[in-house]
Amino acid sequence: MTSEAHSESGPSATLPLLVRDFVDSQVIPREDALEAGERDSWEALRDRATAAGLWALPLPVEHGGGGLPLADYLALAELEGRSDYGPDALGSACLLTVRMLDAHAQRELRAALVPELVCGRAGSAYAMTEPGVAGSDPAGLRTTAVPDGSGGWIVTGRKWFITGAARADWVLVVARTGADLPVRQAFSILAVPTTAPGFRVVRELDVLGAGGQYEIAFDQVRVPGTHLLGAVGAGMTLAAERLALGRTLRALRWIGQAQRAVEQLARRATARRLGDGYLADRQLIQQLVFESELQVRSARLLATEAGTLVAAGAPARIEVSLAKTAAARALSTAVDAAIQVHGAEGLSTASGLPRLLRTARAARILDGSDEFHVSSTARRLLRDYSDTATMG
Amino acid sequence: MTSEAHSESGPSATLPLLVRDFVDSQVIPREDALEAGERDSWEALRDRATAAGLWALPLPVEHGGGGLPLADYLALAELEGRSDYGPDALGSACLLTVRMLDAHAQRELRAALVPELVCGRAGSAYAMTEPGVAGSDPAGLRTTAVPDGSGGWIVTGRKWFITGAARADWVLVVARTGADLPVRQAFSILAVPTTAPGFRVVRELDVLGAGGQYEIAFDQVRVPGTHLLGAVGAGMTLAAERLALGRTLRALRWIGQAQRAVEQLARRATARRLGDGYLADRQLIQQLVFESELQVRSARLLATEAGTLVAAGAPARIEVSLAKTAAARALSTAVDAAIQVHGAEGLSTASGLPRLLRTARAARILDGSDEFHVSSTARRLLRDYSDTATMG
Amino acid sequence: MTSEAHSESGPSATLPLLVRDFVDSQVIPREDALEAGERDSWEALRDRATAAGLWALPLPVEHGGGGLPLADYLALAELEGRSDYGPDALGSACLLTVRMLDAHAQRELRAALVPELVCGRAGSAYAMTEPGVAGSDPAGLRTTAVPDGSGGWIVTGRKWFITGAARADWVLVVARTGADLPVRQAFSILAVPTTAPGFRVVRELDVLGAGGQYEIAFDQVRVPGTHLLGAVGAGMTLAAERLALGRTLRALRWIGQAQRAVEQLARRATARRLGDGYLADRQLIQQLVFESELQVRSARLLATEAGTLVAAGAPARIEVSLAKTAAARALSTAVDAAIQVHGAEGLSTASGLPRLLRTARAARILDGSDEFHVSSTARRLLRDYSDTATMG
Amino acid sequence: MTSEAHSESGPSATLPLLVRDFVDSQVIPREDALEAGERDSWEALRDRATAAGLWALPLPVEHGGGGLPLADYLALAELEGRSDYGPDALGSACLLTVRMLDAHAQRELRAALVPELVCGRAGSAYAMTEPGVAGSDPAGLRTTAVPDGSGGWIVTGRKWFITGAARADWVLVVARTGADLPVRQAFSILAVPTTAPGFRVVRELDVLGAGGQYEIAFDQVRVPGTHLLGAVGAGMTLAAERLALGRTLRALRWIGQAQRAVEQLARRATARRLGDGYLADRQLIQQLVFESELQVRSARLLATEAGTLVAAGAPARIEVSLAKTAAARALSTAVDAAIQVHGAEGLSTASGLPRLLRTARAARILDGSDEFHVSSTARRLLRDYSDTATMG
Repeated sequence: MTSEAHSESGPSATLPLLVRDFVDSQVIPREDALEAGERDSWEALRDRATAAGLWALPLPVEHGGGGLPLADYLALAELEGRSDYGPDALGSACLLTVRMLDAHAQRELRAALVPELVCGRAGSAYAMTEPGVAGSDPAGLRTTAVPDGSGGWIVTGRKWFITGAARADWVLVVARTGADLPVRQAFSILAVPTTAPGFRVVRELDVLGAGGQYEIAFDQVRVPGTHLLGAVGAGMTLAAERLALGRTLRALRWIGQAQRAVEQLARRATARRLGDGYLADRQLIQQLVFESELQVRSARLLATEAGTLVAAGAPARIEVSLAKTAAARALSTAVDAAIQVHGAEGLSTASGLPRLLRTARAARILDGSDEFHVSSTARRLLRDYSDTATMG
Repeated sequence: MTSEAHSESGPSATLPLLVRDFVDSQVIPREDALEAGERDSWEALRDRATAAGLWALPLPVEHGGGGLPLADYLALAELEGRSDYGPDALGSACLLTVRMLDAHAQRELRAALVPELVCGRAGSAYAMTEPGVAGSDPAGLRTTAVPDGSGGWIVTGRKWFITGAARADWVLVVARTGADLPVRQAFSILAVPTTAPGFRVVRELDVLGAGGQYEIAFDQVRVPGTHLLGAVGAGMTLAAERLALGRTLRALRWIGQAQRAVEQLARRATARRLGDGYLADRQLIQQLVFESELQVRSARLLATEAGTLVAAGAPARIEVSLAKTAAARALSTAVDAAIQVHGAEGLSTASGLPRLLRTARAARILDGSDEFHVSSTARRLLRDYSDTATMG
Repeated sequence: MTSEAHSESGPSATLPLLVRDFVDSQVIPREDALEAGERDSWEALRDRATAAGLWALPLPVEHGGGGLPLADYLALAELEGRSDYGPDALGSACLLTVRMLDAHAQRELRAALVPELVCGRAGSAYAMTEPGVAGSDPAGLRTTAVPDGSGGWIVTGRKWFITGAARADWVLVVARTGADLPVRQAFSILAVPTTAPGFRVVRELDVLGAGGQYEIAFDQVRVPGTHLLGAVGAGMTLAAERLALGRTLRALRWIGQAQRAVEQLARRATARRLGDGYLADRQLIQQLVFESELQVRSARLLATEAGTLVAAGAPARIEVSLAKTAAARALSTAVDAAIQVHGAEGLSTASGLPRLLRTARAARILDGSDEFHVSSTARRLLRDYSDTATMG
Repeated sequence: MTSEAHSESGPSATLPLLVRDFVDSQVIPREDALEAGERDSWEALRDRATAAGLWALPLPVEHGGGGLPLADYLALAELEGRSDYGPDALGSACLLTVRMLDAHAQRELRAALVPELVCGRAGSAYAMTEPGVAGSDPAGLRTTAVPDGSGGWIVTGRKWFITGAARADWVLVVARTGADLPVRQAFSILAVPTTAPGFRVVRELDVLGAGGQYEIAFDQVRVPGTHLLGAVGAGMTLAAERLALGRTLRALRWIGQAQRAVEQLARRATARRLGDGYLADRQLIQQLVFESELQVRSARLLATEAGTLVAAGAPARIEVSLAKTAAARALSTAVDAAIQVHGAEGLSTASGLPRLLRTARAARILDGSDEFHVSSTARRLLRDYSDTATMG
C-alpha cells in the first residue's frame, strides 16, 4: 500500500475510497471513545490504519509515511476530515509540524523528532495564541524567549487554545526574541520538550463543552540553541508558511464534515415519512439540501484551488482566506440543515450532529475569525484591483 | 408586594426592575447549579423569590400567586426568561398547566392540584410529543386512553421530549380516545399522577448536551374518570388553547435571553481593546450589534402584539407564529453575534454563551419548527388575502 | 369631512378605508400619467381628493388642511404611501415643509407661504444634498450664504437629488453661514423663490430611469433677511428635526408599498395554476409570503413606535434609524418576492412591480444609506448600553 | 488571428486579453446605442471584431468562425459577457442555434442557414416560452405543428419573451406534434423564416424597461418538411441539449458582468474620499467587496466545471443548475454592492449600473427560476444520495 500511495503513476484511484471507508466505518463509530481520549481506541485505530496502508499518507516515506505529494493529498484531506478525529487516527495530523521541522529544524533535532512524530510515538503541539490577545493581532503576543548567555534561550509566557497540549511531547512555541523590532522580525519559533522544568499545562479549555484545547505556561523554561527553528527573528515568516497550509487543510476537513452532514440530511429526508409522503418531497426541505450542496461544492472548488496554489509554493492569501471562510460557512449551513431535518432528534448527542455543530460554530472563530478574513482579504483585493487599474 | 402586583392601578412600575434584578443577580449566577438540579439551590431561590414578593406573579392570588392579569404579565415574562431557569425559579413556569386546570379540570382535581402547583410543592409536566412523530403532525400520535369499563381510563403509549418529567408529580397526557374520529375530536387530556403503576420515566434525553427532557412510558396506567380535563374528545381544542399562550410566553423568554446576549455583546465590545481602539469601533462589530438589536426589538413588538391578542382570548394564530419565529431567530442572531464578538472565549462554558446557543438552536425546532410555521402561516395568510380580495 | 378628520373623538374610523380606497382606485391606476407629470391628471386628483374630504389631512385646518394631529396621521401615512404619488396627490407631501415654516419662519413669510403650500397652489423643495458629498457627511457641504451687507444673504452653490425642484416655487436651502464653526452651528436654512435671479434647474437626474429629482444651482442668489428660518446657525438643528419626521413618514410609505406588493403577490399565487395545483401550494412560494409579511409587520410596528415618539417630540434617533432600515428592507423583500412569483411578467412595466422595485432599491440609499444607519445607530446603542452598565 | 484561435497548441494566451479589451473599450462605451438598436453601431463593431480576429470565435472555421473548441471557449464566454451586448457584437450569440442546426438540420437547410448566421448576415431567434405557461412547465405549451398533408407542417400558436425576434430572419419554434404523447415525445422543432405568411411580431415586451424581447404569433404558418430539425417528436431532447449549454454560457456571461461590477465597486471605493479616509477603509464596504468576490469566484468555478462537463457531452444537470443559480446570485450580489458603494449616483443610468441591475434581476427568473432549480436539483440530489446509500 505504501508503495501504491507514492507510486510514479500518482495516487491510487482506490485510495480515496479506502480512506473514506476507513473513516466512515472505523473512526466515526468510535467518536465518543476518541473524544474521551481512550488510549486503547486510539492505538487500535493506528494499528488498523497501518495494516490498511493508510497511515500517515502525506508524510515522508523514509520515516514510515505514505510519501504522497501534497497536491495529491488534498483530495484525501477532505475524506480524512469527515471526522474531527480522522487526521489523528490516520497519522496525518502532524503534517504541518513535520513540514516545519523538515524545512527549518537543525539536523540533530530533525533527526530525533521527525521519525517519532510520523510513526505516532511522539505527539506535538503548536503554540501561538495567547490569553487576552486577539488571534489576528500578533503584535499583542507577550511570550518572550531571551538568550540565556550560553547559546540557549529562556522562554516565559502563557499560551491558550493549544490543541493536544496535554498529550504532546514537544511544543513549538512562537516567542518574542526582538523587543523593539517590527512584527515581521520580532518572533522566533523554538521546540520545547514538555518535560522541561517550568513547562506546565495550566488547564483544559472547553469549546462548547468539548475538551482537547489547553492553556499552557512557560515559567523560565530553558531551551538549548539547537532547538531554534530557522533563523532568529524568522518566526512570523515560518508561522505564515504554516498557516497557509494549515488553514487550507482545516478548510478541507470542514468540507468533509459538511459533506457528511449533507449525506445524513439526505438519508433522513428520504427515509422519514410525513403524512402521505416523505420529508424529501417538501420544498423547504429540498431547499436545505440545495443550499447545503451548493455551499459544499463551492467551498470544495475554492479549497482545492487554494490548496493547489499552496502546494506549488504560492502564498495564495486571498484564495486561502476565501476557502477558509467558505468552508466554515458550508459546514455551518450543512450541519444546521441536517439538524433541522432531524427535528428534536437532531439535537440529541446520539445523532452525532451536535458534535458537528460544535466544530461548525468554532470554525467561524478559529483560524482567523470571519471578520478578520473579510476585512484583511477585502483590503488585499482592493489593493490588487487598484494596481491592475493603474497598470491597465 | 402581592398587593402591589395585582393592585387596581396596574402592575407596579418597579416590578419589572425587581424581576430583572432578581433574575440577573440571583438566577443567572446559579445557572450551573440549577441545570444540575441541585435541590438546595432551587429551594433557596424559591424562598428568596417569595420573600421578595416575586413568586408566581401571574398565578391566582387565592393560591399564593401574584394575581397579575395575563396582559400585565407579558412584559415580565421576557424579564423572567432572561434565564431559562427564571420562570421555574420565580414560580410562573406552571402558569399554562394551572390555567388549563382552572378552566377544564373537574372541581375536586382542581382543588387538590392547583394550590400545590402554585406554591411549588408539586411539579407537573405536559406530554404531547411522541417518538417518531413529527411535532406538527398530531394525526400521527399513537398513545391511547381506552375506557376501563368503570368510568375510568387505561392509558398506554410513549411520549418524549417531555420537559421536567422526572421531577413531576403529575403529567397531563394527550391521548387518543376516538380511534376513527377526525383529529379535532379524537383526543382527550388526562391528568396522571406519576406514582400510578405503569408510569415510568424511560430515559433522559439530551438537547445539545443539556438534560431536563425525558422519554416517558404509560404501560396500561389506570386513571379515574375524574382526571379527565374538559370533555371527551376535546383534547385538541384544549391543546390549541394552551399552545397559543405557551408559544407566546416562550417567545418572550427567548427575547429575554436575546436581550441578555446583546447586552453581553455590548459589554465585551466596549471593553475589549484592539490595536489602537476598541472592538466597538469596528464596523463589522457594529453591524452585529445593529442586526441583533433590530431583530430583538422587532420580535418584542411582534410578541407583545400576539400576547395582547391571546390574553384577550383571540386565537391569533398568525401573530403567534410570526412572534415565535421572529423570537427564535432573534435569539439565534444575538447569541451568534455575542459569541463571535467574544472570540474563542465565547465558545467556553464559562462565558455562559454556549448555554444560550443551546436554547437558540433548539428554539428553531421546538414549539413547531421554522418550516412548519412558514408553511402553515403562509397558507393562512394567502387564505386571508384571498378572502379580503373577494369581499373587496 | 374636514370636521371628521379633526373631530374631538379622534380620527374617523372610516378614514383609513377612504384613504386606502382613494389611493388604490384613483392614484395607482394613474401612476404612469402622474410619473410623466401630466398636469391634468394631477389637478383632477386634487379636485377629487378635496371633494372626498381627503386633501391635506395632517395640515393645519385654518389653511385648508384636515387638521389631523401627527400621531393620528401616522396610520394614514402608510396608506397614502401605497403609491409613491399618493402623498402629493392627497396634499400631504408638503407636511415637512409646512411644519418647518410654521415653527421657524418669520411671520410674514409664513403668512405668505403656508396657505399656498397647503392648498397646493405653490410647490416647494428642500435642498440639502450636494454633488460629490456623501449624504451622511454634512461637514462636506459647500453651498454658502454670505451676508449681502444690507441684512440679506447671497447664496452660492449647487445641490442635487432635490425632489420636485422643477415644479417648486420655493426652495428651502441649507447653506453654510459660519465658515469655521463646528457643524452644529455652521449652517442656516433660507427660503429661496425659484424665480430669483441666479437660481437655475441644471438637469433632471434619473433614479433607475425615473425622473423627478433634480440638480439645481444657486449663482449668487440674493435672499432677503426675512427669508431666514430660525436663527443664524440653527440650520442643522432644524434639519435634524425635519429629518426625524421625514424618515419616519417615508418609512411608513415604503411599508405601504411593501404591503401592496405582498397583496399583489398573494393574488398571483392564489390565481396561478401550475400542474395540478396553484403556485400558492408550493412551499417556496409560501416562504416568500411568510418572509415578506413578517418583515412588513415588523417594520410597521417599528415605524409606528418611532412615529409615536417623534410626534411626542422625542428625538428617537435609534428608533427612527431602525424603522427606516427595516422599512427599506421590507420593501425590498416584498417587491422582490412579488416579482419572483410573477415570473417574467413581473419584470414587465405593465405589472407595476418595476416601479416598486425602483423605490425599493433607492430606499436603501436615500435618507441615509444602510451602512450609515448600521454604523451610527450601533455606536449610539453601544454608548447607551455602556451608560446603563455603568449606572447599574 | 483565426489561425491562432484554432491552432493546435490551444487558444492563444493573449486571446482572453484581446476579448476583454475589445468588450471594455469598444462594446461597453456603446451600450446605449446598441440597446437602442442603432444599426451603424452594430455594424461598425462587427467590422472591428472581424478585423481584430475576434469574430465568431467558437463557430466553425469553414463558415468564417474562429473554430475554437467549446472547452476552450468557456473562459472567453465570461469575457464576452462583460456586456450583455458582447456576444452579439462578437458574433458568438448564434452559437447555440448553429450547433443545433449543425447537429440536427437537414443538409439543405443547414447549408443555407449556417454560413449566413455565422457571418452575421442573418439573425435567428429561438421560441419556446408561451404566454400564461410557466417556463418550467413544458407540458403546458400549446403551440402546434400539424401535418399539411404534403410533407410539410402548419404552425399555430403564440410565443413570448423571445429574444431578438424583431431582428430575426429565422425562428426555431418548439411546437407540439403529438397531442397525446408524453412530453418527451410530444414536441418537434421547426425552422420558420420570419417572412413566412402568418408569422407576426405582436409586440415588444419590456424587461424592467429594456426592450429586445418580443411576443410573436404563428397564424397557420406553412413550413416545408425539410425545415424539421431532428426527428418528429425529438423536440424536447434537442431542447434539453441546447438548454444545458445555453444555461452554462449565460451563467458565464452573468459572471462576466458580476466581475465588471466588482471592479467598478473597487474603483469607486478606492477613489472616494470620506472624512479623513476613503470608502475602501470602511469595514462595511470591505464586506461588500469580500462577499461579491467570494460569490463571483465560486460561481466561476462552478460554471467552469459545468461547462467542461457539457462540452464533453455529459448532461450535467445538477452542475448546470448549481452554476446557473450561483451565477445569477453572484450578479445580484455584486451589482447591488456596486450600486450601494456608489450611493445615489449608482442609481443613475450614467453609472451603467442600472443596466446591470436589470440583467441581475431577470437572471433569477429567466433560464429557470431560482425556485425551479432549487426544487428540481434537490430532488435529483436526493435521488443520487439515496442510490449511493443503497449501493454502498
